[in-house]
This record gives sequence, C-alpha cells and structure tokens, in this order.
Amino acid sequence: MNGKPAGGLFISFEGIDGSGKSTQARLLAEALGKAGYETILTREPGGSVGAEQIRSLVLEGDPDRWSAETEILLFTAARRDHLEKTIQPALRAGKIVICDRFADSTRMYQGISRGDLRTVVDDLHSLMIGREPDVTFIVDMDPAIGLARAKARQTSEERFEDFGNDFQVKMRAGFLALAEEFSERCIVIDGARDLGEVNQDILSKTQEILA
Amino acid sequence: MNGKPAGGLFISFEGIDGSGKSTQARLLAEALGKAGYETILTREPGGSVGAEQIRSLVLEGDPDRWSAETEILLFTAARRDHLEKTIQPALRAGKIVICDRFADSTRMYQGISRGDLRTVVDDLHSLMIGREPDVTFIVDMDPAIGLARAKARQTSEERFEDFGNDFQVKMRAGFLALAEEFSERCIVIDGARDLGEVNQDILSKTQEILA
Repeated sequence: MNGKPAGGLFISFEGIDGSGKSTQARLLAEALGKAGYETILTREPGGSVGAEQIRSLVLEGDPDRWSAETEILLFTAARRDHLEKTIQPALRAGKIVICDRFADSTRMYQGISRGDLRTVVDDLHSLMIGREPDVTFIVDMDPAIGLARAKARQTSEERFEDFGNDFQVKMRAGFLALAEEFSERCIVIDGARDLGEVNQDILSKTQEILA
Repeated sequence: MNGKPAGGLFISFEGIDGSGKSTQARLLAEALGKAGYETILTREPGGSVGAEQIRSLVLEGDPDRWSAETEILLFTAARRDHLEKTIQPALRAGKIVICDRFADSTRMYQGISRGDLRTVVDDLHSLMIGREPDVTFIVDMDPAIGLARAKARQTSEERFEDFGNDFQVKMRAGFLALAEEFSERCIVIDGARDLGEVNQDILSKTQEILA
C-alpha cells in the first residue's frame, strides 16, 4: 500500500480550526478542475459510505462515551475504509485526491489531548494504514484569528472546535512541529492572507509539483 | 492493563459454531452464581453499550461492505470498549467474568479466512488490548456434529455460521493449535458429551482454579 501510485497525487490539508483549510481544499479542487485535472475532494473523518457511518457513531451522542483509545481505533477503521473505497481507486485512476484532514489530524488531536497516545497513533497508522499523502498543505494562522473565524461559522460540529484558545495554540505549535517532522511532504502556508491570495499560493505550489 | 487483577477471574469460551460454547458459558455462570460467586456473563462481539453499536455496524447490511482489515479494526474497537466498560470494572470488583468469545475468535476467523492477517490481528491486539483471559475453555467437537447443531438452532446471525463443513474443520484444527500455542491458559473440553456432563467437567476445573 505504500508508495505513490502512478499518475495520481494525494494532497491533504491540515491546520487549526478556523484556519480556512476546508475552504482552501475546495478552492484548490475547483482550480485544478478548471485547469483540466481530474480531481476529487474528500474529507476526514468520513469520505466513504462506511467511514461516514463510523464518523456518526463517534461524533454523535455523549462525547465521553468512547475512550481516547477506542476513538482512535474507530477513526483508523474509518480511515482504512476511506482509503480503500475512495482514495486508492481515485489514485489508481490517475486522479488528484484532495483530502480535508488525514492522519496528521489524529496525530495532533489525540497527541495533544494525551501525549502518551502519539506513539499508539503512529504504531496503529503504520500497521493498518501505512500510507501518507504525497503533499500536505498546513494552513497556518494565529489561533486567535482562527478561533474567531471558527466561532463565526457556528458549525454543528462543536466537538472539534470547542477547545478554546489554549488548545488551538498547542495545535498550531503541533502542526508546525509536524511540518518539520515530515518536511519531505509538508508545506506550511500563511493562511492569514486574503482567501484568493492563499489559494493562488497553494495552486502555484501544486502546479510546480505536477509539472 | 496486563496481568490478572486481584480478586477477579476472566474466563473465556471458544469453539466452533454449534459446539455448545454459549450454552456452556451460561451454565457455568449459573453454577458459579449458585455456589456464591459474583459472576457476570458477557459476549463478543458486543458486551457493552458502545461495543453492541459497533457490532451492529459490522454485522448488519451487506457482509462485503467492510474489508477484513476494517472489520478487524472495528472488532478491536468494540473489544476495547467491552474491556474498559464491562470486563475491567467487574474484575476490579473481584467478580468472575465469563465471556462467550474473546480475541481468540478474531485470531481464528480472520486468520483462517486470510492467513496473512494473523500477524496483523496479533499486533493490533498487543497494541490496543494487551490482555488475555486468565482461563480459556475451548469446547471441542467433531465439526459435522457442531454444524448440524448450529443449523438446527437457525440463529439470525448467519454470517458466522454459514461457512460449511470445510471451514469448521479448519476452525477446529485452528482452535486446537491455539490451545497448544496458549497452553498456559487454554483448557480443551470434549463438547460431544451430554450438556450436563460437559458443564460438570468445566465447573470442576474452574473450582480447582478458584481453590
């Protein structure tokens, strides 16, 4: 399962809540589509029929009903299904896969909530997923700005966005550390600029990779 | 999480379909209860609120909708929840936990369907579960007898019981090999005898362990 399949390109977007990563993932998919590339836009947790069902099982109901360990197993099951049913078939068909969050989000959320779990997350990933994106755009931003944006959106998924500024500060630092750890695939993008400007930056970096 | 908690005893029942393991688990729980032991009877997949929800997600719908790897992850998530919410609290309270199937069933079913998965199952178990039962009764029986019994029961869960005689022959051999591999905790029981006789055999062996 490792290695970049011929033809396809697997791009993930990561960043703190409110950083605009989901918007940027969509804008990149649209721009690449206009440029003639076959592109699919997907997200985690979810991204396939089964993975969306697992997502619902994890995120609905009392947030404390699953332990961190059980939650990691469920998210990994969802990721495995997403990879098999959505990502790999698209890559094999030579498409560009743009994914809003992938394993890095699990590394960050679980690792920051409980530092001792980072190793478990990594071991589980090696054992059951075994593949990283080819390119990861980390949309970076001052957490105060990100949090204000996230609150303004009023999304229904409070769980990932109700952690407050301290958590987001740790998340930002975590993502920047991750960009160094996986420097061969991570590109840090300044997300505090105008949306269109950020999109142009990401698009031109993607086109360099595709060229 | 490893090691036998003070006071409690964790007993699992394993065996091919129709071997009578579920009946024997229930009869042992009843007999130990009558003898004054605090006992809980539980089962896998399932055994806690969350694990039963995961069980439904795996077993309902098209049997082919999950890959073997995703199914193993979901069963391991269910097992983790079952362990945390049902088994460990009972053991900590000094109770006897009698569980109809545990990790050995996953080792057998997945390992026999796809031999290359046995290592994955074991690695995942070490990483996320980390504990075996203190005692495992393997109820052994000629698969022809077991299959006839299973068919006569007409249970709603065809998935685990619709594999035919060849599969059950492999399962029996697999369970007997497992009894040798984990000889420190596995006790093979001749299940082809009268129900009451089998129950007496298992009860006396359990009382020896408790003495």
